[in-house]
Amino acid sequence: MIRISIDAMGGDHGPGVVIPALVKVATRRPEIRFVIYGREEAVRPELAKYQKLAEKSEFIHSEVAVKMDDKPSQALRHGRGKSSMWMAIDAVKSGTSEACVSAGNTGALMAMSKFCLRTMATIDRPAIAAIWPTLRGESVVLDVGATIGADAHQLVDFAILGTGMARSVFGMERPTVGLLNVGVEEVKGQEEVKDAGRMLREANMASLDYRGFVEGDDIGKGTVDVVVTEGFSGNIALKTAEGTARQIAGYLRAAMSRTLMARIGYIFAKGAFDRLREKMDVGRANGGVFLGLNGIVVKSHGGADADGFAAAVELAYDMVRNRLLDRIEADLDLFHARNPRPRNDDGTRRESDAEADEEN
Amino acid sequence: MIRISIDAMGGDHGPGVVIPALVKVATRRPEIRFVIYGREEAVRPELAKYQKLAEKSEFIHSEVAVKMDDKPSQALRHGRGKSSMWMAIDAVKSGTSEACVSAGNTGALMAMSKFCLRTMATIDRPAIAAIWPTLRGESVVLDVGATIGADAHQLVDFAILGTGMARSVFGMERPTVGLLNVGVEEVKGQEEVKDAGRMLREANMASLDYRGFVEGDDIGKGTVDVVVTEGFSGNIALKTAEGTARQIAGYLRAAMSRTLMARIGYIFAKGAFDRLREKMDVGRANGGVFLGLNGIVVKSHGGADADGFAAAVELAYDMVRNRLLDRIEADLDLFHARNPRPRNDDGTRRESDAEADEEN
Repeated sequence: MIRISIDAMGGDHGPGVVIPALVKVATRRPEIRFVIYGREEAVRPELAKYQKLAEKSEFIHSEVAVKMDDKPSQALRHGRGKSSMWMAIDAVKSGTSEACVSAGNTGALMAMSKFCLRTMATIDRPAIAAIWPTLRGESVVLDVGATIGADAHQLVDFAILGTGMARSVFGMERPTVGLLNVGVEEVKGQEEVKDAGRMLREANMASLDYRGFVEGDDIGKGTVDVVVTEGFSGNIALKTAEGTARQIAGYLRAAMSRTLMARIGYIFAKGAFDRLREKMDVGRANGGVFLGLNGIVVKSHGGADADGFAAAVELAYDMVRNRLLDRIEADLDLFHARNPRPRNDDGTRRESDAEADEEN
Repeated sequence: MIRISIDAMGGDHGPGVVIPALVKVATRRPEIRFVIYGREEAVRPELAKYQKLAEKSEFIHSEVAVKMDDKPSQALRHGRGKSSMWMAIDAVKSGTSEACVSAGNTGALMAMSKFCLRTMATIDRPAIAAIWPTLRGESVVLDVGATIGADAHQLVDFAILGTGMARSVFGMERPTVGLLNVGVEEVKGQEEVKDAGRMLREANMASLDYRGFVEGDDIGKGTVDVVVTEGFSGNIALKTAEGTARQIAGYLRAAMSRTLMARIGYIFAKGAFDRLREKMDVGRANGGVFLGLNGIVVKSHGGADADGFAAAVELAYDMVRNRLLDRIEADLDLFHARNPRPRNDDGTRRESDAEADEEN
């Protein structure tokens, strides 16, 4: 039995989408149990519609619902201890659940997750990982926006985090890993990317097959299973891909309605177009996974429908079942034992980390 | 009459594509003249096929052809003074031509252009600008990979460079400008982007309508006419968009051949698909424009066909005719007169620029 805590108040649709999503998951994965947090008057009526789900769930009332446009600091101030988001995360900390899923606002969810679960002892910063559909299948891309900038050690940590996720979710033995870079030769800067590459090559880890630098167009090709970059360029890559997919969908719609021949063609090919539309939507299914925390937190897309939210819950389930955190911790320990990182003289963590904690 | 110098040896196809492209341009723009550089035995036979083009062109033999995989430093060492690429650039410097077009290797072309033409006196670094098809039309995106990283002053310079290009190429009076950023609130870092935004807002320039931050998905939407970012994230955005477009084209091909109905639909809609394919190819038409140099250099895609190379030549022509360099210089002077930038005590340019010169 695996217990997942659910923030029922997150996303654009709240319990109206979250509860039907849980019904789908409960049918497909009978060994799953839910701890659902939300406002009584919003969640109870939805839950009442599905007797079978109620049997597999515990519902706990929470006073506050974090808004989609709350700033992280606001959300922490008003929602700490009493919001459905906080309580769902805290359930992971207390052991009531083994993972948390929310479609709520990303910044607030990350801030609360860091504050409540804390970053893993051996790393500096968490990352947000996206599952990216490719021509070969799917890849893990991280960081897509948890923090801006990353030094070489942090990039290596991201590689280990992403590898753990690829192993847990895709069932791979030794995922291939690439560092996102630009193809221009002899460019200055980005020393941290080069250093990270050197460290990954030298580490020659059993769990991770480092393949060198990749460029932006390699993501969609599926050249490697795990694409590693810092959060600024990762977020821009993700959003640009989403924008391009929507743009082409727009062209496609226009092209298919322009002439009579095209409209006839569209009618014949409608089934194919429907499948295509699903594939084109980068990141639609899963949202992001927060990696590097002492607990599993999955962020579903705010606009997700019941299928989308269900996919996010199943992703959390798969990561728990395949012991994501154990894998990551073992790999981090192995790497750091051989590659000690710079610490202050008194053994405290470095400034970048102290800062991150202060933020909370 | 406008004279354009052409590196006939660049690109994957060399004179076999370049010369037919010039034939197209010569028919459409009768007032254009070409100065063509390349190896005699490769270019003469092509030129001989088109009597009308020969009348509008001067051909000059060059010993060396820069290879597509030469490193910039190699290309400079072996090709300075005697390669078709160098000679085509040098023609701009000497006044023999008013712009240069090459489909040769980007790193070599940028290194030679910087060395030969030099960066404009008032700015630190050149940028590569791409014309990006959007749902609203086209936008200018820069820097897509000339250098990595940029401080606030350099980002403002890029905004002015890109605005000049949008005015020259799109015929706009006051293009809208956005700084590429990530949407996460209260994030640390990227102070230079915030500072650049403040400077652009305060400058309140007559030629440029600053609209604030934009995200990756705003590029394809066409939210602003000019998208400004540093070269690392710009290059990753461009390559990711290209990769996504190719990925969706792959899905589309697969979807349209999967079932009999889809195949029938494809036959009816083939014309629409052909138009769509053209639109989907981000940056296909033009390659990149080097901005911030004392001369106009256009890089055509290495894999461009005759239509693609012709579009690059016509882009160069439009920028000359619409006095791109004068516009840029006037705007830079205006901005810098009001916003002096940090200089060394002896009035020399800052380190970043000294470094850039040293590279050459």
